Amino acid sequence: MSDHPTLSQLDAAQPFVVRHVGPDDEQQARMLEALGFASLAELMEAAVPGGIHDTATLALPAAATEEQAARSLRDVAARNNPLEPMIGLGYHGTLTPAVVRRNVLEDPSWYTAYTPYQPEISQGRLEALLNFQTMVGDLTGLPTANASLLDEGTAAAEAMTLVRRANRAASGRFVVDADALPQTIAVVETRARAMGIAVEVADLTGGLPEGDLCGVLVQYPGAGGRVLDPRPLVEAAHERNALVVVAADLLALTLLESPGEMGADVVVGSTQRFGVPLFYGGPHAGYMAVRAGIERHLPGRLVGVSVDAEGRPAYRLALQTREQHIRRDKATSNICTAQVLLAVAASMYAVYHGPEGLRAIAQRTHRYAAVLDAALREAGVEVLHERFFDTLTLRVPGRAAAVVAAARERGVHLRLVDDDHVGVSTSETTGRTHLEAVLAAVDAEGIDLDAVDGRTGDALPDGLHRSTGYLAHPVFNTHRSETSMLRYLRRLSARDYALDRGMIPLGSCTMKLNATTEMEPISLPGFADLHPFAPVEDAAGYRALVTELEGWLAEVTGYDEVSIQPNAGSQGELAGLLAIRAFHVANGDDARDVCLIPSSAHGTNAASAVMAGMRVVVVKAAEDGSVDLDDLAAQCEKHREDLAAIMVTYPSTHGAYEDGITELCRVVHEHGGQVYVDGANLNALLGHAKPGEFGGDVSHLNLHKTFCIPHGGGGPGVGPVAVRSHLAPYLPTHPMHPDPAKRAGIGPISAAPYGSAGILPISWAYVRMMGGEGLARATAVAVLSANYVAKRLGEHFPVLYKGHGGLVAHECILDLRGLTKASGVSVDDVAKRLVDYGFHAPTMSFPVAGTLMVEPTESEDLVELDRFCDAMIAIKGEIDRVQAGEWTAEESPLRGAPHTAAAVTGPWERAYSREVAAFPTGPDPDKYWPPVARIDQAYGDRNLVCSCPSPEAFAQ
Amino acid sequence: MSDHPTLSQLDAAQPFVVRHVGPDDEQQARMLEALGFASLAELMEAAVPGGIHDTATLALPAAATEEQAARSLRDVAARNNPLEPMIGLGYHGTLTPAVVRRNVLEDPSWYTAYTPYQPEISQGRLEALLNFQTMVGDLTGLPTANASLLDEGTAAAEAMTLVRRANRAASGRFVVDADALPQTIAVVETRARAMGIAVEVADLTGGLPEGDLCGVLVQYPGAGGRVLDPRPLVEAAHERNALVVVAADLLALTLLESPGEMGADVVVGSTQRFGVPLFYGGPHAGYMAVRAGIERHLPGRLVGVSVDAEGRPAYRLALQTREQHIRRDKATSNICTAQVLLAVAASMYAVYHGPEGLRAIAQRTHRYAAVLDAALREAGVEVLHERFFDTLTLRVPGRAAAVVAAARERGVHLRLVDDDHVGVSTSETTGRTHLEAVLAAVDAEGIDLDAVDGRTGDALPDGLHRSTGYLAHPVFNTHRSETSMLRYLRRLSARDYALDRGMIPLGSCTMKLNATTEMEPISLPGFADLHPFAPVEDAAGYRALVTELEGWLAEVTGYDEVSIQPNAGSQGELAGLLAIRAFHVANGDDARDVCLIPSSAHGTNAASAVMAGMRVVVVKAAEDGSVDLDDLAAQCEKHREDLAAIMVTYPSTHGAYEDGITELCRVVHEHGGQVYVDGANLNALLGHAKPGEFGGDVSHLNLHKTFCIPHGGGGPGVGPVAVRSHLAPYLPTHPMHPDPAKRAGIGPISAAPYGSAGILPISWAYVRMMGGEGLARATAVAVLSANYVAKRLGEHFPVLYKGHGGLVAHECILDLRGLTKASGVSVDDVAKRLVDYGFHAPTMSFPVAGTLMVEPTESEDLVELDRFCDAMIAIKGEIDRVQAGEWTAEESPLRGAPHTAAAVTGPWERAYSREVAAFPTGPDPDKYWPPVARIDQAYGDRNLVCSCPSPEAFAQ
Repeated sequence: MSDHPTLSQLDAAQPFVVRHVGPDDEQQARMLEALGFASLAELMEAAVPGGIHDTATLALPAAATEEQAARSLRDVAARNNPLEPMIGLGYHGTLTPAVVRRNVLEDPSWYTAYTPYQPEISQGRLEALLNFQTMVGDLTGLPTANASLLDEGTAAAEAMTLVRRANRAASGRFVVDADALPQTIAVVETRARAMGIAVEVADLTGGLPEGDLCGVLVQYPGAGGRVLDPRPLVEAAHERNALVVVAADLLALTLLESPGEMGADVVVGSTQRFGVPLFYGGPHAGYMAVRAGIERHLPGRLVGVSVDAEGRPAYRLALQTREQHIRRDKATSNICTAQVLLAVAASMYAVYHGPEGLRAIAQRTHRYAAVLDAALREAGVEVLHERFFDTLTLRVPGRAAAVVAAARERGVHLRLVDDDHVGVSTSETTGRTHLEAVLAAVDAEGIDLDAVDGRTGDALPDGLHRSTGYLAHPVFNTHRSETSMLRYLRRLSARDYALDRGMIPLGSCTMKLNATTEMEPISLPGFADLHPFAPVEDAAGYRALVTELEGWLAEVTGYDEVSIQPNAGSQGELAGLLAIRAFHVANGDDARDVCLIPSSAHGTNAASAVMAGMRVVVVKAAEDGSVDLDDLAAQCEKHREDLAAIMVTYPSTHGAYEDGITELCRVVHEHGGQVYVDGANLNALLGHAKPGEFGGDVSHLNLHKTFCIPHGGGGPGVGPVAVRSHLAPYLPTHPMHPDPAKRAGIGPISAAPYGSAGILPISWAYVRMMGGEGLARATAVAVLSANYVAKRLGEHFPVLYKGHGGLVAHECILDLRGLTKASGVSVDDVAKRLVDYGFHAPTMSFPVAGTLMVEPTESEDLVELDRFCDAMIAIKGEIDRVQAGEWTAEESPLRGAPHTAAAVTGPWERAYSREVAAFPTGPDPDKYWPPVARIDQAYGDRNLVCSCPSPEAFAQ
Repeated sequence: MSDHPTLSQLDAAQPFVVRHVGPDDEQQARMLEALGFASLAELMEAAVPGGIHDTATLALPAAATEEQAARSLRDVAARNNPLEPMIGLGYHGTLTPAVVRRNVLEDPSWYTAYTPYQPEISQGRLEALLNFQTMVGDLTGLPTANASLLDEGTAAAEAMTLVRRANRAASGRFVVDADALPQTIAVVETRARAMGIAVEVADLTGGLPEGDLCGVLVQYPGAGGRVLDPRPLVEAAHERNALVVVAADLLALTLLESPGEMGADVVVGSTQRFGVPLFYGGPHAGYMAVRAGIERHLPGRLVGVSVDAEGRPAYRLALQTREQHIRRDKATSNICTAQVLLAVAASMYAVYHGPEGLRAIAQRTHRYAAVLDAALREAGVEVLHERFFDTLTLRVPGRAAAVVAAARERGVHLRLVDDDHVGVSTSETTGRTHLEAVLAAVDAEGIDLDAVDGRTGDALPDGLHRSTGYLAHPVFNTHRSETSMLRYLRRLSARDYALDRGMIPLGSCTMKLNATTEMEPISLPGFADLHPFAPVEDAAGYRALVTELEGWLAEVTGYDEVSIQPNAGSQGELAGLLAIRAFHVANGDDARDVCLIPSSAHGTNAASAVMAGMRVVVVKAAEDGSVDLDDLAAQCEKHREDLAAIMVTYPSTHGAYEDGITELCRVVHEHGGQVYVDGANLNALLGHAKPGEFGGDVSHLNLHKTFCIPHGGGGPGVGPVAVRSHLAPYLPTHPMHPDPAKRAGIGPISAAPYGSAGILPISWAYVRMMGGEGLARATAVAVLSANYVAKRLGEHFPVLYKGHGGLVAHECILDLRGLTKASGVSVDDVAKRLVDYGFHAPTMSFPVAGTLMVEPTESEDLVELDRFCDAMIAIKGEIDRVQAGEWTAEESPLRGAPHTAAAVTGPWERAYSREVAAFPTGPDPDKYWPPVARIDQAYGDRNLVCSCPSPEAFAQ
């Protein structure tokens, strides 16, 4: 009777996919028309090789609306029960300053930024990271700190490998403190096993064990609360030519003498308790600082000071030649994405509190522990150590579980050490009610805490009181009011170009929408405030979320099982390779240790393979950029006895759907190898092809690429590993995993059982709101957009490689080598000139030197795509003028780029006008102005400065 | 035994006051030294007249930490129980787009902005408001809409007074639809009583009542759901020379013919359901649109298009001469602060959804109502109207309360109309489960909604289907993806200068910190999602919060009772004056209707007095700016029979603590008058003097000045009224007040019983975190900062008035009249030039023409204060150069200001350099660039354009 839309139709009228995908139906139609296709389906039919194309709708729940997904996540969060976290073990209660939460963690100008590889448009976050390095350096007492690492466990593992690299002469064991955090020991052991390093866990109370060693790791303070004086160990180790790594608590270091002052070579740890939410284990920024002389062995990113073309100090990443994208299998580490956003938050905690504020927080934390200790002793409870910072170990024979349960009843989570021992740690969030709860849990009620307080001294170890100052730089002593802090945060973010300004067309990085509805839930206390080792019954929400998300990821990739533990793509790679290696070993194929890697692969692949104990053998590329199947066959034949795996990216790192993938998988399998499909380019596959179906045995995924976790300026990321069932027994485990079945096995790849659990709601929401059809649509539009850009720009710049159907996949490579040769204008020049046009540069010189790789993603609408194409075409016009001799390359606006406001208002003697410099497309009131001009990279590496320069440096 | 700080000391180590107050102890000491005082106490002793100085600590709870306050507010929010809101009555469920919530409502760059009186640095929010006006104009079918009004009730009252102004010839009644929203009727009646306008509430179903009338208000659709065709009423009214006001639901107007198209003269309403949270009644933006010919009678702010000095279109407030700060007692309204932030949010809802999206939401809303209607009828329930948009009235004789209770049990709030009728309204948030709950509540369970849906047509009234288009402007048809929307929001906010960039030293406006911890709680669902007429048992949190806050405000002001109902300072003034008037009438003093107002008073005072039915008599100022006590005595004597009140601001609008205040109060009281102390300058009193103690009978407060509610670009505000006990019986009431004792009385001043309840947590948090000592400290530092600025700048610009002790209070007036006369450089020039220096201008020409009034507040630290002073001194140097003949005023950088980036990179023929123009204090990578140059105000008023200009306008 009614010809009106039905309720069901109206309910479905505003799907999230319309908000996520940039081009609307009409724009899609215009783009398809430009490419000569009638529909997205027809395009994908043409682009994806038939042998792998799977058009079945993904078996996912029907797409939820934003409101439904948000409500579901509120319900999930409510099923977590974050009590006062007194478990310790490197994770502590902390108060995120609200001004930092709102204006960093919840602000798109910070969280949608990319890794600061284009330093001129990243000065804000580079300054924040330099603050981080200064903070870590000052507190640890060492001159050089990086920014940042993934967590304390992997930082310790990286320190172990650094020790091996920096100390090649030495041989022998790496000794680890028995009082180190248990998850740190486990992560170090996992990593050591793969690399053939012998690890010995030893009680260091009496000194170093006998025998050769390359290094030793001391926990300071220890997991059980004891504070070992590192000096005798340092002396003994150095005498034996071993290096000393100290895993230190940064807050404790505000009161305890710094490891650097006492001779440590390397200091690692976590900055979580500097205002970063517990997040059920992550993401948090790990740190590493080193003494002079070994800074070039540092893994991870290092920010340094250099100068720009106009002579002002400017920040940029230093010593990039250490990194895996340059050095590949010779890299110092496979770390790529780290925890920049969290490092920024932690650094801002120090900026906000300053040295006095941090010291006050530490004193208060210690005082609560000291008063608790005294009260416990007065009540007749045995406490193991006389001296401590924030952690007590109570000896309660046979009653430990009961005490932990009783404390839980009273709102406090304690650490169950074993049947007879309970751990309790104080923190910034500890208050009297929590001490009372702990006392009640050991039947010591009714103690007058103020009276105990009055008769109790501090309990820091004698001789270890800190004598050295820290955080004297003005930045840590200026922003004490919220007004000042807010403006500082805004000033920094305004210097940067992030997705909130415009497109970031970074090939291989998939800079797409990070929707607010995906982001909001991570601030909910149920997600933010849970300790990773909270009892399983208090983490029901997280467990349900992880189970569901792992299931969905398995479905969309065609694999059988998924682990979300790896907290970065690099760690997912390592986990996947370790699974392959363990599989071979379990089959008696110990000899299988060769990993084939195509020449165009991400450098991370090679670095990860080395870390997994494999030997890298490169497979050549054919003329068209695809894997040379003949060379592959030859290599497989050559390595038939020792072939472990191939690592292949699909679509290839050239952004092409290669036809040979099925054949490639077949050949490798025939020769006893496993196929590792790097999931970096999964944004071109979802809903259209499944690696687990077309031949992959294992993949890692990048949730921060395909699944909308924001890049955060260089992290956090999440790198789940997905495997077919034969590899499932070798997925990461964790000694404290909530699921007892996952406690023993290959070992942990990350410090926390669920890695960066706190940001999984983002990807959960994305999948939940897109549904199977939405994901497939997003993929198709990503491919449509890339081909549209390739088509428009192909007339001006050669598009280097195409795949199946003469089409590119989700990205395209613009080949500038000919233009560079003819004009002298480099890809660098084009990248910097794009800033003047209001864009972030595409990926430069990867996977092919002298090219730009453009990945528009599905989230950019046609207006922005055309604006980008127009800019590139205009730049081509400028190159033409150089080629025509109108300008030399040196005097062209390309080389002069980017142009600062100071430059275009100052004296002007360039060969082009100020307008051409600053407003090449006409006046724009919304123009983004870079705060600095072109930065001299070499100068910074020659004159390495990796902490905050004095204000005077900026004076001239 | 211990010489360490105690737990209690450590617990108190990081008080919020340190974050709120800008200058730290060391800076305060330096400022005090510059002024020659040893301590804040000594300064205040000198500044505040002894007769009123009250140094007793305020009786408030001890200051909470930020974490404690946040936790308390989470608990309070949890005590509210926001069920699905199907009560209707102008408040509806709506989904705030997450991207708008995060990037407008939760973003300091939007919420800390000031009213856009400096248009060159307010182009972003002016564009957003122009979008708002265009949206309202399109949907109502009228050419001119304002931006915005306080709520639908006051908008209707304003429409009534507009009718009286615009239609002076007409006499007689103002007729109000009996099916208008009950709170609208009540607000209109309150306002009409005060102004002597006869209001008749009449059933308009059969047409207009007989007799003379000046205007009629029709609700469209009606509160009970009926949709009356306005055309016969319009015809009849116009025949009788009466104007027609239609109170319309904007969402309904996407489907129903627009009132403008049908001849309405004025359309009013609320934009709440366009994405603005319910907030238990407010804040939401009301709107008003008018037909051609009466736009100059519009109350409130009106954004118009003009041109800047470089010829580009630019936005600014139009027809400001209508406003109370200019016209005082001849103003069209007393409205000052409105609901800009909420108007921005509502306009962005339309930008995000576009015309198709809005129509789809309306269709869905209607469809749910139609299906519910059909299901109810099939189940034998009587429904009053056959045709409706979203609201049904069910006749359930004797069972209404039971039905409402049953629905509540099932998670739905319905409207209890009377014993026999229940109202139910659908909205964007309605879903199937809610229909099922309603059906179950009337014992009509088990109905197959899809089946009903299939056999049910739409139920919009025949002949009223909308035929006219709307929102065709590109801005409503471009930003459909979240990426595009995010960038649009960022682009707009980046054009503006708000507190997140720097100081806004606006005298009389108290632009201080809006702390994040104060702001965060308003987003909690418990506060955001509650309907104002939800049953009292579901609003326990709000009631507790209001009671506590009203008590604290009474304590700090020295009054006996407070009402937080007035949702702006102007409404607080009106409420206070109505209380005075009612008090006199109750005492038989009907003749007392003269309100004395000092010549320096805020224009709002005079406008409010007129609205309260009083006659304004101006009291002269003495030479020193204070109230001329001789003239006061003379006026009191003259008006001894008809003196109602004096309205006096303290400290005075000149920013001085006047010694005569005690005497003033005494004289007025002696002559039978009441003393109204305007609380605009309460930031100079808190913790040091109480108006209720030194002679005031009533005050209004501005929570958006003294109590940290952000200005939001021109609202929201809250203007509580505080009275001594003899006036307490005359505080605002509300027919649907949760407290039955407050239902009858003077009537409501705002549409909702608790006004802008949703933002009260901000002020609650402020008081809770500051405590009594903190508030007193803030006051003292505000006074310190003002005196510091007066001291530093006094050497360059005469400081016009000083008060007790030769000191200023919390602000100071810089007199530029001499400089202007000598140099031709105006206060306007200085204000615009400050933009080039990176500042928002102080208050211009209020209270004295040709001056600048500077209020630094306590939140600016010494670095920023000095930066401002340095800028002013540098500008004085520029004026000196003009005086010295180096430049004429016309060719000076002062007149050329503000300088855009386009100007300083373009052709340059000015008498000063580009650097002097843009970087007068040297290069600054963080410079704020104004998007437009000086705006031609007169051009815009001569060529009135108040909706979005076409994109072509910007092309050249």
